[in-house]
Amino acid sequence: MTKIEILCIGNELLSGVTLNTNAFWLSKQVTQVGGLVDRVVAVRDELEEIGYAIRNCLERDPDWLITCGGLGPTYDDMTLEGISRTLGRNLVLNPYAIEMIKQSYKKRRQVVRMNKARIKMAVIPKGSVPIINPVGNAPAVRIDVRKTKIVCLPGVPSEMKAIFRNSILSEIKQQVGKFISEERRYRVEGVSEATISKTLTKLVESTPSDSLYLKTHPQGYMNKNVPVMNIQVVSRGSKKEAVKRVLERISNEIISEVKKHKGKIKLKKIQ
Amino acid sequence: MTKIEILCIGNELLSGVTLNTNAFWLSKQVTQVGGLVDRVVAVRDELEEIGYAIRNCLERDPDWLITCGGLGPTYDDMTLEGISRTLGRNLVLNPYAIEMIKQSYKKRRQVVRMNKARIKMAVIPKGSVPIINPVGNAPAVRIDVRKTKIVCLPGVPSEMKAIFRNSILSEIKQQVGKFISEERRYRVEGVSEATISKTLTKLVESTPSDSLYLKTHPQGYMNKNVPVMNIQVVSRGSKKEAVKRVLERISNEIISEVKKHKGKIKLKKIQ
Repeated sequence: MTKIEILCIGNELLSGVTLNTNAFWLSKQVTQVGGLVDRVVAVRDELEEIGYAIRNCLERDPDWLITCGGLGPTYDDMTLEGISRTLGRNLVLNPYAIEMIKQSYKKRRQVVRMNKARIKMAVIPKGSVPIINPVGNAPAVRIDVRKTKIVCLPGVPSEMKAIFRNSILSEIKQQVGKFISEERRYRVEGVSEATISKTLTKLVESTPSDSLYLKTHPQGYMNKNVPVMNIQVVSRGSKKEAVKRVLERISNEIISEVKKHKGKIKLKKIQ
Repeated sequence: MTKIEILCIGNELLSGVTLNTNAFWLSKQVTQVGGLVDRVVAVRDELEEIGYAIRNCLERDPDWLITCGGLGPTYDDMTLEGISRTLGRNLVLNPYAIEMIKQSYKKRRQVVRMNKARIKMAVIPKGSVPIINPVGNAPAVRIDVRKTKIVCLPGVPSEMKAIFRNSILSEIKQQVGKFISEERRYRVEGVSEATISKTLTKLVESTPSDSLYLKTHPQGYMNKNVPVMNIQVVSRGSKKEAVKRVLERISNEIISEVKKHKGKIKLKKIQ
């Protein structure tokens, strides 16, 4: 399994100002190519907090650590300083990064002075590599520590997505290898989790754990007393036939179990 | 400062199935009454992961640790088992919790058998206390460990919110004490973060850190080359007059700085 940790940095994520859609989007991308997001952590814009989180992640030895946020020009953008201190690698002015920033302003026909704040975006930990940001100014940064590839992305969603798609996703995909995943989601009315829990547990236990992911998502009650839940069935593997077979078998078992308890079940569209 | 950590448990949060709106909602509630959310962590439905996260949180000695998810009747609801193992407190059948579950089904006029899955929701760590869930079946659970009050809430948003409002929020509020917060948000066009970063840093450095929170949120570019950002100004304290004074002074300084650089600035509505 290719294991990935996501670390989001920004007070706005911890005060009800910004919903963490970055972590959601990244998790979806990684899952779709067969990677496993092991943990998502969000911390404040504070050196001590960033340092603690980085040490904490590295101690778990993931294949990738993707950080989001804190790369900009303001006083509270301190992701790279946090990494620098934690890894004991000095911050140095990177000539490629400076060039990227200049080109970025030029592309937008903006005439700006390379003041201290703008130069800050090119000051990155020694031994790290800047990555082009095609839609914003702050370059992303890549640093490899033992087996863990650390990638620092900006927090602005459009920039984060563009860099991830352009420069990161294909490498994760390659590391995962051949991967096929098929999924069905059902909406069930009138049968509660607790009623079919025993059967679901049996299905899970009788199928290899890396080929099936089965989960109930309770949705509360309809008309005050009719329980509603979604059931997610994901079949995964490297062989198309086997993946389809597992999906079919598990789906049929679930449908017949729900009907046995006089519940309604219907297939849901997956966005 | 009353420090709070939020731990969300559920694979759906790490695979792009469910956006973590629970952490967002809780962060907003806590911030509004003057508490500080220090960290949000999301982990998979695995005992080892839950245990690691709980140990990790407790080592940071927060005032509150609020967990969401993993209290239901299915095989992958394992929050309480994770806590039980981590704290070395056996899981025991709690008679009050059993009664709460029975009443909950009764209230909904559901005739159900108290099967193993349903009884599981009443099996909680020794020394912990069940909390009534007014809109669902699984009771919440409260366990105090040293100075940290651990509260385990269900993951279904309506249940999580009802329990938090009914049974937790007022205690956090009381612990924080008198707290007034006033906020303004501005939308700025045509001036980039890097341009006004120096002035903002000065404003922050010249104001006591617990009374002002000032943050720029870059929003990318309009018409390809006009930078857009939001600026958030939050003034906090226990005295209304002082809070208003700081908000006024900082807002005026920002407006004049933006205008100096020929940018547009307007007040945004806060939802």
